Amino acid sequence: MPELDFAAALGRIRRLVWRTPVVRTSDGWLKLESLQRTGSFKLRGAANRLLKLTAAERARGVVAVSSGNHGRAVAEVARILGIRATICVPDWTDPSKLRGIRAAGAKLIRAGASYDEADERAAGIVAAEGLTPVHPFDDQDVIEGQGTVGLELIEQLPGLDEVIVPLSGGGLVAGVGLALKPRGVRVVAVSARRASVMLQSLEAGRPLRMPEEETIASALSGGIGDDNRFTLRVVREVVDEHIVVGEGDIRAAVRRAFHDHRLVVEGGGAVGLAALGSGYRPRGRAAVIVSGGNIDGPALEMMAG
Amino acid sequence: MPELDFAAALGRIRRLVWRTPVVRTSDGWLKLESLQRTGSFKLRGAANRLLKLTAAERARGVVAVSSGNHGRAVAEVARILGIRATICVPDWTDPSKLRGIRAAGAKLIRAGASYDEADERAAGIVAAEGLTPVHPFDDQDVIEGQGTVGLELIEQLPGLDEVIVPLSGGGLVAGVGLALKPRGVRVVAVSARRASVMLQSLEAGRPLRMPEEETIASALSGGIGDDNRFTLRVVREVVDEHIVVGEGDIRAAVRRAFHDHRLVVEGGGAVGLAALGSGYRPRGRAAVIVSGGNIDGPALEMMAG
Repeated sequence: MPELDFAAALGRIRRLVWRTPVVRTSDGWLKLESLQRTGSFKLRGAANRLLKLTAAERARGVVAVSSGNHGRAVAEVARILGIRATICVPDWTDPSKLRGIRAAGAKLIRAGASYDEADERAAGIVAAEGLTPVHPFDDQDVIEGQGTVGLELIEQLPGLDEVIVPLSGGGLVAGVGLALKPRGVRVVAVSARRASVMLQSLEAGRPLRMPEEETIASALSGGIGDDNRFTLRVVREVVDEHIVVGEGDIRAAVRRAFHDHRLVVEGGGAVGLAALGSGYRPRGRAAVIVSGGNIDGPALEMMAG
Repeated sequence: MPELDFAAALGRIRRLVWRTPVVRTSDGWLKLESLQRTGSFKLRGAANRLLKLTAAERARGVVAVSSGNHGRAVAEVARILGIRATICVPDWTDPSKLRGIRAAGAKLIRAGASYDEADERAAGIVAAEGLTPVHPFDDQDVIEGQGTVGLELIEQLPGLDEVIVPLSGGGLVAGVGLALKPRGVRVVAVSARRASVMLQSLEAGRPLRMPEEETIASALSGGIGDDNRFTLRVVREVVDEHIVVGEGDIRAAVRRAFHDHRLVVEGGGAVGLAALGSGYRPRGRAAVIVSGGNIDGPALEMMAG
């Protein structure tokens, strides 16, 4: 992978993406990508990718597969840039995310019971209609975009020693790791036990396929791709420590975010907080990336009420 | 009232109070005192007041009357400084606020059906036990502390043209107004219709007593004091425009904060957002102060679900 330029990416996406706050809480410093436009960090990678499209690619349109947040991000950037977008989602995608995708005017395809089925549907559309795929994580421009979270964070918290990052397909961990590792920051990746394909693939040394399990961290579900090109390798390089959290830890973290921090955080966005709640103790000046907030009222009430 | 020094106050309270973020949203810029330690801006005034106590006053302890947020703030500052605190609240105070007061180790007195009854109970304790009262708004040190919200805000948003501030007893409006008015910022005060004693007192030209009405902006309930010394006069001086919002507007604002901004905001903290939702259009570069986030899960679900 060629050198990524996170500062250039931040300059490129600035007009589409909000600078999210870093706040102090009883869980330490939190970088709140849950307050990002569209409710997750995914907007950064989508913006960086779509802004690099050629005129011909823009004219044909884009397609994305997503458990919701990436799709919503692609749909919103496409709307602003005047690009046609098609978003393929599994049937279990949260209603709040579906509303966001529809509100942005994208074509929404509910493509089957699993993330993999949605992925196959998107591949079919790419082949049949010549749309440009916008990969949710395994893409250099997407990784570069997600890395801007790390760049902003160290501007906001100089002297940062450690960053705690949710791990799923690895786009956020790869980007943040590549941005912050050279600056001496320790990278801790947190997986949801029921969405830990990346972690198990790292242990196996190759991309694995795992059966999808239901999890309240649904944003972290989905495979890493049989033909993973970037994130498996980069995650191996940049992560200093892996932590795995269970459903109970995640539920407690969503509840704590609500009651103690007055923040609406989705399960997948709360795994870093869940790591702290399950006993993990960071070293030095640390920040947790809270990666998304797209959760419905009833789901939140179930967890936090 | 002597000259207040907001910069000095900010320096004084910094170790007890968090610098809250200013975030961009589809409702414009928001200054999030809902993310303040203890969940509201009240911590600032309480910290400034308690840090100015004499050694003898500290040794005897303090008493506060509160619909919840001020009491929680006083209790927390007192805990940190090792001062005994007694908090008198009306019976309708939210459970989340009661939990916060108890967690800080304060003596909690549920003192009757109305804010005024709680106020009388506190006055009795001051007379009988020699404790120092910490007024929720009509006190120079409290006003000076609340004004630090405005000072921080203009540091974070240089070129601010207008600030939209919740109005109840007037401590926040007075402090923010005195801090920002000399810097050319237009001050818009927002009252909840069912807690608009200050507004009606301004119109009458003297402090009025009004029957307490139930409102989802419970943090704004309570009178302004028959012997109001500061806030009635200062609010008259500093406010450029008054807006009144109804229960439906406030409910919609709490819902919008939840669904669109991923923030847990209480009714009283959301009246600025409610003003925007009811059609008010700010002039120039404006910021809304979101003053508190202490709302219970069931109440939020009722409004936002």
